[in-house]
Amino acid sequence: MEALRNIWYVAAWPSEIGTTPLRRTLLEEQIVFFRQTDGTPVALGNICPHRFAPLHRGKIVEDTIECPYHGLRFNGQGHCVFNPDLNGAVPATARVRSYPLVERGGLCWIWMGDPTLADEGLIVDFPFFQSGSGYRPVTGYLHVRANYRYMIDNLVDVSHVLIVHHDMLACPGLATGKQTIERDGNGIWVKRFAEQTTPPKIFDMMWRRSRGDYDAPMDHWAESKWNPPSLISQNTGVQLSGLPRDGGLETKNFHLVTPESETSSHYFWAICRNFETDNDALDVDVRAGTEYAFVEQDEKLLEALQENMNGREFWSMKPALLVGDVGAVQVRRETDRLLAAEQAAHAPVPVNPSSSAVA
Amino acid sequence: MEALRNIWYVAAWPSEIGTTPLRRTLLEEQIVFFRQTDGTPVALGNICPHRFAPLHRGKIVEDTIECPYHGLRFNGQGHCVFNPDLNGAVPATARVRSYPLVERGGLCWIWMGDPTLADEGLIVDFPFFQSGSGYRPVTGYLHVRANYRYMIDNLVDVSHVLIVHHDMLACPGLATGKQTIERDGNGIWVKRFAEQTTPPKIFDMMWRRSRGDYDAPMDHWAESKWNPPSLISQNTGVQLSGLPRDGGLETKNFHLVTPESETSSHYFWAICRNFETDNDALDVDVRAGTEYAFVEQDEKLLEALQENMNGREFWSMKPALLVGDVGAVQVRRETDRLLAAEQAAHAPVPVNPSSSAVA
Amino acid sequence: MEALRNIWYVAAWPSEIGTTPLRRTLLEEQIVFFRQTDGTPVALGNICPHRFAPLHRGKIVEDTIECPYHGLRFNGQGHCVFNPDLNGAVPATARVRSYPLVERGGLCWIWMGDPTLADEGLIVDFPFFQSGSGYRPVTGYLHVRANYRYMIDNLVDVSHVLIVHHDMLACPGLATGKQTIERDGNGIWVKRFAEQTTPPKIFDMMWRRSRGDYDAPMDHWAESKWNPPSLISQNTGVQLSGLPRDGGLETKNFHLVTPESETSSHYFWAICRNFETDNDALDVDVRAGTEYAFVEQDEKLLEALQENMNGREFWSMKPALLVGDVGAVQVRRETDRLLAAEQAAHAPVPVNPSSSAVA
Repeated sequence: MEALRNIWYVAAWPSEIGTTPLRRTLLEEQIVFFRQTDGTPVALGNICPHRFAPLHRGKIVEDTIECPYHGLRFNGQGHCVFNPDLNGAVPATARVRSYPLVERGGLCWIWMGDPTLADEGLIVDFPFFQSGSGYRPVTGYLHVRANYRYMIDNLVDVSHVLIVHHDMLACPGLATGKQTIERDGNGIWVKRFAEQTTPPKIFDMMWRRSRGDYDAPMDHWAESKWNPPSLISQNTGVQLSGLPRDGGLETKNFHLVTPESETSSHYFWAICRNFETDNDALDVDVRAGTEYAFVEQDEKLLEALQENMNGREFWSMKPALLVGDVGAVQVRRETDRLLAAEQAAHAPVPVNPSSSAVA
Repeated sequence: MEALRNIWYVAAWPSEIGTTPLRRTLLEEQIVFFRQTDGTPVALGNICPHRFAPLHRGKIVEDTIECPYHGLRFNGQGHCVFNPDLNGAVPATARVRSYPLVERGGLCWIWMGDPTLADEGLIVDFPFFQSGSGYRPVTGYLHVRANYRYMIDNLVDVSHVLIVHHDMLACPGLATGKQTIERDGNGIWVKRFAEQTTPPKIFDMMWRRSRGDYDAPMDHWAESKWNPPSLISQNTGVQLSGLPRDGGLETKNFHLVTPESETSSHYFWAICRNFETDNDALDVDVRAGTEYAFVEQDEKLLEALQENMNGREFWSMKPALLVGDVGAVQVRRETDRLLAAEQAAHAPVPVNPSSSAVA
Repeated sequence: MEALRNIWYVAAWPSEIGTTPLRRTLLEEQIVFFRQTDGTPVALGNICPHRFAPLHRGKIVEDTIECPYHGLRFNGQGHCVFNPDLNGAVPATARVRSYPLVERGGLCWIWMGDPTLADEGLIVDFPFFQSGSGYRPVTGYLHVRANYRYMIDNLVDVSHVLIVHHDMLACPGLATGKQTIERDGNGIWVKRFAEQTTPPKIFDMMWRRSRGDYDAPMDHWAESKWNPPSLISQNTGVQLSGLPRDGGLETKNFHLVTPESETSSHYFWAICRNFETDNDALDVDVRAGTEYAFVEQDEKLLEALQENMNGREFWSMKPALLVGDVGAVQVRRETDRLLAAEQAAHAPVPVNPSSSAVA
């Protein structure tokens, strides 16, 4: 499928990878994850090179994964280290692909391309997600039946909020507020700002809960930053008009998308708030609200849109372009540029779906 | 898909089109229907030209349909007339396809081809379906998992009744009765007539209910007329042998089929009787009996047949031809001729499935 | 699909074929089976040559099968012998394909290729399955969602037993025992033998039930013989070490596989034991145990493996080869050789899936 390969993607939350094999398909490749006794997480191709059984159905034995068909065992580097049958001989071809996998910043990152290019320094940081940032995170995972690029379109696009999230997140003032697009390293900021407005219902509720009634107009901001391949960080907040933004209510969020197939994606999200940071009970509401907004409002639409596209390429459809699309269009153009550059620069990497046999 | 385009099809019953969007796929094109406040029904391509969301998930606002993603509103001609975001500018490319749609004779008719050729005078009339005809109608809609041509084969074919509808509609006398094929304008009549026979069980029951016992043999007729593209009208009735047909029990019916896809169809039917025309309760039985005969008897067979064909063309299968097939074969040949003529005469119309973006 | 055609396959158990039509797809061809009043079983193409309805939905009338659509009746040779409509004329093209079908040795065998080559002398015999053999059979049928060649790989492969059937059938001594491969006519034996070992749990249980406690080590053997196209016979047994095998506990089994499609198979099995041959109740346990081992253990793995292969050819995947694979690899190579020979030697037979119309 069309997706960058020589770049870090989120593969899993660290808590998902343990001593029970985790099966996940990323960029159409079937991968099995497990954790070694020293804590190192491992990602291997999920297909035994002997008779092609899926390794995730086997079990973890002494830092190896045992094939469920004939009991061959593979270590974290993908080498077969044990064969229980007859003389126990293991041919050199009995190897599965091993993927660079790094646990960093509270996420497990995987490199799907040429392993020799996997530089951990390229992993994107989210400072607000780290302890001591003053922001309390709520996190989640969703499996989404939509291509990752429609998800990115949606996540950098503030203009859909007025309609799709009309009940809790919409702010008519923001729809007609000020839009700014900014480059930031290899990222793109899409910012909207409204002065003297009525805040979205969710922020009105939160302000009244944590700070009490108010009778002045507010400022409201919603800012999304895209980093390649498909990583979004966000600031959304409100403050009484005229006061500095720092004292306002704000969430800093990330929405990290990893392609599964042409029509489905993995979605890792965190909503981090600077208010009621000691309130455990509020976490439950934040999770419920986030899942409601995404699953009930965005995803149903993205799935229907995906079905409408029926495999056709976005630009071939000659989309009508609006002023509110400038950010999303820049992200699409930059993604197209990176994809073309990767295809031009690198010899093909063996990325045959679900094949892991090393000749 | 292979179907005539420059011709009127039934799109919906008038009662189906109101101020809640109706989504329906016709000839593999996704269409959304709604009714304007002046009563005019509207048919638009069901895909927003901005980000390709399906419009039917939106709502009707002041004679426009609002896209569920970004709130663009389209009028009955398919023009975008409102954008709620930022400066509200609307590019000229923000248009969806609008289909000619006419409410006439108790049906909503749509023109799937070149709109400049859409002549309302070409719509087929069914006089027996109009008030004052002396016939009381019962109507219904069925979604059928079979190609429209197998349905037409079935509907002009009396010979299957003996086997498929062996319980209520079969008449052994008719199976060996007289068959007549007649051209009628662009239509084809397939008629069967049996003298001095035992009527089908359903007519026997109806006669006894409405006229009492009888001990003489009867005449029975079953006549189907095809009009292109896939419209069937029917006369079926019984009368005591030797008496004029006019005084008999008769139903005049239509079976109007509109292709949905290669393997599915929309089916609009009416059974109109000249007996017990004031009996509301009988309508329930007529509907139940019609649905039983079609859903339980015909459709299960047509679906299985469709599966057997597995996409192969009918004539390529070298069907064995029987005398009882003459009518159905003439209808197939005439349909083939009209399809070839349309392909030869007209430049291609933009009929890309579910695409409605106008450049 | 890729499968031998000029060879006998098992089509059904004799008890499956009676006067209710049996529908079964073999090598991607839809076939209907029924039994004539003289006891002869019949196999016909399951598609009427008139309007292509599936014949299995019809009924058996006087040694013919009646089409459920228009009532044409076909005899055991596939000739149409009756048309109930109009003048009753039947064109010579109204014929369906008839397949050679032979009931022999307690099985119904079908020939899918050129009928002129169908020599009953080529049918494989299983003497242990015949009455008087001293072995009591338990039989069954399973529909399997895996290609027949993965099933054969599995059935001639003793090395998977240690892992997949770890609970009841595994024997660590056998895993490291002696392996022998032998040619036997057009068949291939794959044998394993372990001396002085602990028997599999199932044999331990059976020995204690039927012969009482024992405190000496045992010998254990497991031998599978493949015959083309996909027929496996097996000997598995135990005996006290040093005593002749004849006095031991043994089952002689067959596992007869017939391709349905690229991804599914029919599986006819028999487990025949030389102990407790008068114990009816034990049959229930044998059936349950066999279905557990195959459905819960083997099939789930084969289905997952099939999905992993995703249509790719086995050798193109460059499988790592182990010493324990020698038998399965010889069977694969011999099957490849027979397939190539058949393709080279014979003109193509009309085997269009589900087509049975004879021009």
